[in-house]
Amino acid sequence: MNKAMISTWKMSYDGMLKAKDILQQDGSVQAAILAAIQDVEAREEFISVGHGGLPNAQGHVQLDSAYMNGNTLGFGGIIEVENVESPIAVAAKLSDYKVNCLLSGKGAEAFAQEEGFAFQNHMTSQSKKRWQDKQKEDMELKAYEGHDTVCVLGKCQDELAAGVSTSGLFMKHEGRVGDSPIIGSGFYSDALYGSAAATGLGEDIMRGCLSIRIVDAMAAGMSVQAAVDTVLDAHVKRMQMANRTCDAISVIAMDKDGNCGASTNISEFPYVVIQEDDIKLMVATYQNGKHDNFEADAAWIKQYTGD
Amino acid sequence: MNKAMISTWKMSYDGMLKAKDILQQDGSVQAAILAAIQDVEAREEFISVGHGGLPNAQGHVQLDSAYMNGNTLGFGGIIEVENVESPIAVAAKLSDYKVNCLLSGKGAEAFAQEEGFAFQNHMTSQSKKRWQDKQKEDMELKAYEGHDTVCVLGKCQDELAAGVSTSGLFMKHEGRVGDSPIIGSGFYSDALYGSAAATGLGEDIMRGCLSIRIVDAMAAGMSVQAAVDTVLDAHVKRMQMANRTCDAISVIAMDKDGNCGASTNISEFPYVVIQEDDIKLMVATYQNGKHDNFEADAAWIKQYTGD
Repeated sequence: MNKAMISTWKMSYDGMLKAKDILQQDGSVQAAILAAIQDVEAREEFISVGHGGLPNAQGHVQLDSAYMNGNTLGFGGIIEVENVESPIAVAAKLSDYKVNCLLSGKGAEAFAQEEGFAFQNHMTSQSKKRWQDKQKEDMELKAYEGHDTVCVLGKCQDELAAGVSTSGLFMKHEGRVGDSPIIGSGFYSDALYGSAAATGLGEDIMRGCLSIRIVDAMAAGMSVQAAVDTVLDAHVKRMQMANRTCDAISVIAMDKDGNCGASTNISEFPYVVIQEDDIKLMVATYQNGKHDNFEADAAWIKQYTGD
Repeated sequence: MNKAMISTWKMSYDGMLKAKDILQQDGSVQAAILAAIQDVEAREEFISVGHGGLPNAQGHVQLDSAYMNGNTLGFGGIIEVENVESPIAVAAKLSDYKVNCLLSGKGAEAFAQEEGFAFQNHMTSQSKKRWQDKQKEDMELKAYEGHDTVCVLGKCQDELAAGVSTSGLFMKHEGRVGDSPIIGSGFYSDALYGSAAATGLGEDIMRGCLSIRIVDAMAAGMSVQAAVDTVLDAHVKRMQMANRTCDAISVIAMDKDGNCGASTNISEFPYVVIQEDDIKLMVATYQNGKHDNFEADAAWIKQYTGD
């Protein structure tokens, strides 16, 4: 396959349509991944990424993002930045650097400023209202239901890459870092074998370094769907042996040939797949210890969106 | 073996003597690891860790640290914190948390303050002088020669754990994050299989997620020394295929039974090994594509320290 992409959550569908157009017009895999992620970052209705994101406990929207080029093994990431308009654009820029490619906080914001990236206040009135309402509720921290980190993996000819962007855990501690900007956990890409990325409770994803393990499973000869199911199941089992429960985790992967797979430990995880000129909304399911994947039909979309 | 430890660089020897005493007095593996690392953090002559650490380009000493419990898979880390007296103590405390266990910048400092940890200005007059002198030199950023991140792996009965602490790359960009606080790259521990940690140029270590790969190689049945040599060589080769050179990287590992190994891509990398009541200064070497390990004798120490 020459052109393939996979992304997390139904919210990424419109951005993936833009990405498909870019690949059809012979755009780069980086341009396609950025277009898909920036659509989600910019839209206020997607409250777990970018503009209008979920605030931390102090009421600040702190964003994480990363980008990895699977051909050069260049990667870039920004950790807990505020007010940078498009975190993924900054992460992609940093992926060209040999050193200083992972930056946090004020240092990351200074880099974005030096390089001329746009700034924007991501704390919208709705973000603020969600934060104020949450003060009245119980404060158990868990992965946000229904949508969460946007992760996009792409392939164009022999080029593979991965990008992720998130506002992280709702009501997280100031400065808390999730899996998204952490190489090997939130994302990994190696053009010789494939790419993977994760969404869900970052701390539980990091405990198993799921993205590098999925890529390594493909490198060892496992098919992409077997790799995501096997690595996720092994991690959940290992966590149980350590007397831990796993909060929500969903993973996506693509092998070097553009074949895609996804797996989850929640009941339903929607994701989007592009194979050449075809785009599909898919659903990974987990029930009674069994994984399955199917294409979403109109009835499924209706019950999912509540429309 | 009931009691075993391994640590990076000759600078950790005195701290490892303290750690050995703690294990002999039936102290916990966490107490032993903290004692070893805190000896290095506190001593101003070790300029790549803790007090008197190497400043970043803006002249700030920003510290990274992490701790992982291989039995619970709990991990904690702090990223780019200033003025926290003992970064490893804060990381160890965070490893008990289910979420919010990896904190960066001001948020990490706020946690340390809330929890009553001591603060200290790590920018000593010598740190400042090194920073001022460096302004006059060329600014190529590379791993600090001779010593660098302190990493300590420990085992006591069935308990395995890992700890790391560093001031990171000299003259790094404000907010730059290296491999040390990044799970799977700078450190990993799984009591079922073993532990690993890395020192050297963080960005090149992260591109290969070396610590989780070493632990996974042991899980697949490889001996600890074969695991460190094989994973490091494979990564250097993969980097070459991507037209990249690897800057200095050294790795240490311990299997679940307490056997230890170390590997490097520089000519000589000293490390310290405790096996029951015995402590040795060892050297891993790399010459003409071959790895070797030997115990340091008086002549080697003399040429290394220049005394």
